[in-house]
Amino acid sequence: MKIDGIPYRSVWVDSANGWQVRIIDQTKLPWSFEILRLSSAAEVAHAIRSMQVRGAPLIGAAAAYGVALAMRADSSTEALEQVAAMLAATRPTAVNLRWAIERMLTRLRNTRAADRVAAAYAEAQAIADEDVEQNAAIGRHGLKLIEAHARPGRKVNVLTHCNAGWLATVDWGTALSPVYAAHDAGIEVHVWVDETRPRNQGASLTAFELGKHGVAHTVIADNAGGHLMQHGEVDLCIVGADRVTAAGDAANKIGTYLKALAARDNDVPFWVAMPSSTIDWRLRDGVADIPIEQRAATELTTVTGRAMDGSVTTVRVVPSGSGAANPAFDVTPARLLSGFITERGTCEASDAGLRSLFPEAATPH
Amino acid sequence: MKIDGIPYRSVWVDSANGWQVRIIDQTKLPWSFEILRLSSAAEVAHAIRSMQVRGAPLIGAAAAYGVALAMRADSSTEALEQVAAMLAATRPTAVNLRWAIERMLTRLRNTRAADRVAAAYAEAQAIADEDVEQNAAIGRHGLKLIEAHARPGRKVNVLTHCNAGWLATVDWGTALSPVYAAHDAGIEVHVWVDETRPRNQGASLTAFELGKHGVAHTVIADNAGGHLMQHGEVDLCIVGADRVTAAGDAANKIGTYLKALAARDNDVPFWVAMPSSTIDWRLRDGVADIPIEQRAATELTTVTGRAMDGSVTTVRVVPSGSGAANPAFDVTPARLLSGFITERGTCEASDAGLRSLFPEAATPH
Repeated sequence: MKIDGIPYRSVWVDSANGWQVRIIDQTKLPWSFEILRLSSAAEVAHAIRSMQVRGAPLIGAAAAYGVALAMRADSSTEALEQVAAMLAATRPTAVNLRWAIERMLTRLRNTRAADRVAAAYAEAQAIADEDVEQNAAIGRHGLKLIEAHARPGRKVNVLTHCNAGWLATVDWGTALSPVYAAHDAGIEVHVWVDETRPRNQGASLTAFELGKHGVAHTVIADNAGGHLMQHGEVDLCIVGADRVTAAGDAANKIGTYLKALAARDNDVPFWVAMPSSTIDWRLRDGVADIPIEQRAATELTTVTGRAMDGSVTTVRVVPSGSGAANPAFDVTPARLLSGFITERGTCEASDAGLRSLFPEAATPH
Repeated sequence: MKIDGIPYRSVWVDSANGWQVRIIDQTKLPWSFEILRLSSAAEVAHAIRSMQVRGAPLIGAAAAYGVALAMRADSSTEALEQVAAMLAATRPTAVNLRWAIERMLTRLRNTRAADRVAAAYAEAQAIADEDVEQNAAIGRHGLKLIEAHARPGRKVNVLTHCNAGWLATVDWGTALSPVYAAHDAGIEVHVWVDETRPRNQGASLTAFELGKHGVAHTVIADNAGGHLMQHGEVDLCIVGADRVTAAGDAANKIGTYLKALAARDNDVPFWVAMPSSTIDWRLRDGVADIPIEQRAATELTTVTGRAMDGSVTTVRVVPSGSGAANPAFDVTPARLLSGFITERGTCEASDAGLRSLFPEAATPH
């Protein structure tokens, strides 16, 4: 996607030296656009934990590059297993992280140590390239769902939660890929952007992305979506996912479940867009079994924004005597979903639906 | 209720001069505790519009005092009708505002101009005193609902949205009155405090109130309640209301509807606490007929808090090219409510339920 006319991915190898990994520091958006240079797996781990890179598919791709950086320092099998374990522990909920690391392990365990650096960069690049291609396919499949709501003289209103745009993936995004496809196809589309407290990924990343691409959008409080649906202001909801079980339960940014309940109560379609690397075929009951990350209370008790003098400032918004809890994801049961938008097309949110698109998937344990 | 050992109401007549109206500036909480002196109905109207006073019952009481201030300046019938219309237009959703103004009009229209000042202050005082008494009764009735969840060795977890504590009323609160009653009765109660974007009344007012009274509480993002209910962390929800229809639909702060949906999905009781002055007997269908206030986008695009240097600072949290929408209330249909907690006891959220407690209520038009 382009920023001020220049095409970007969210992670790439530095073309000047051919080995450092570059990312956009997403904790600085939308106030400043800063590109970081990562030189070690430890720096990649820090970038993932601190959410300089975030979004399930991007975390996976970044971790793959983290393995490549580690191989450059030490390409022994011991170093490989160590870096895999270290990176896998950075964040617990998104399964794409484990998927990408396991793919790297499978590729590199069968590669001689001397060849591991080149193989690791090639495999990480393949993961990134495939992500771009899969997201473009998600856009084509999801476009049809948006198109179905298009009527002459009125815009299609899509509601989304958090950021599942190109910044959450390597390019295009998952939930926003159909929106970009619709916009580029000349459909008048307008996006209700949930602010997405506590980290405000909607207001800071989704609004930034959509603005840069020229897509009409309006930021709303996370509280407002139900009211808008009650009044016919939402044609369909599309969100991303961090982990989907074999039965179709979907973990996504905290608050997604509440919007899915409102969509069901108002007969608004609610779609989850994701590449198949987001499916955890080993799990069935998402509420019981998907690990939910608990993040620092300060993410809720403080807010960062731009002060009147232009400086980026952090303010405290909760009295100092009060504690805060910050679960980062929730799970939307399959029964509340209209279905999934994947790289192979759309399907029902169920065992049967997922297996109809991915028949080769392993039998769950 | 007490702040640092000193008893306060949220609105009162200045004891030094016997006529000015004093309020706590709620836009400054929790960072500073400032008491304002209001000398005219125009100042009262500004205080209501700018939310220096807010909460349906407090808005009603403040408006009543506004009428009294106006009578001091001009006690003619023309002035009376004018101030009533002016104050009634300050905010559209809370019906207690209209209720209090109509009560003042009924009392004063039948009073000679020469006696109107004294009568107006007396009637406003009666409205305030009755609010305190009704909220204390709501506390006693709601206490039983909390008590029913008490088990030795574990706390009762109550989730609330926005601020329906003593700051939203004249004293005690509606939703929080049962919590204070339970706490004072020795029940171990813990409150999940929804932050309540965009104005953060949960984080800034409810957390402040509960902290001052020593009630255990944890601030959460508005997004988190569904997840907590899925995991058994909420025993019951209690919220306030700004307008309840004769059929039991309840308008309350935006986002209440989403929590009621989650409560229903997880079999968590969801109660609305309100004095009978919150009931609009003329309306039935809340979603269709309760007017929903649209407030300024800046309430969402900017956040005010305390900076590291101690100064209270406002920061922008949405990119400058992005618009925002800010509906201030939503309507929870009666079917999602466990019932109402009123000054006369609890009842089902239905026509029959409300009429069983308030049989004298006028037949709806």
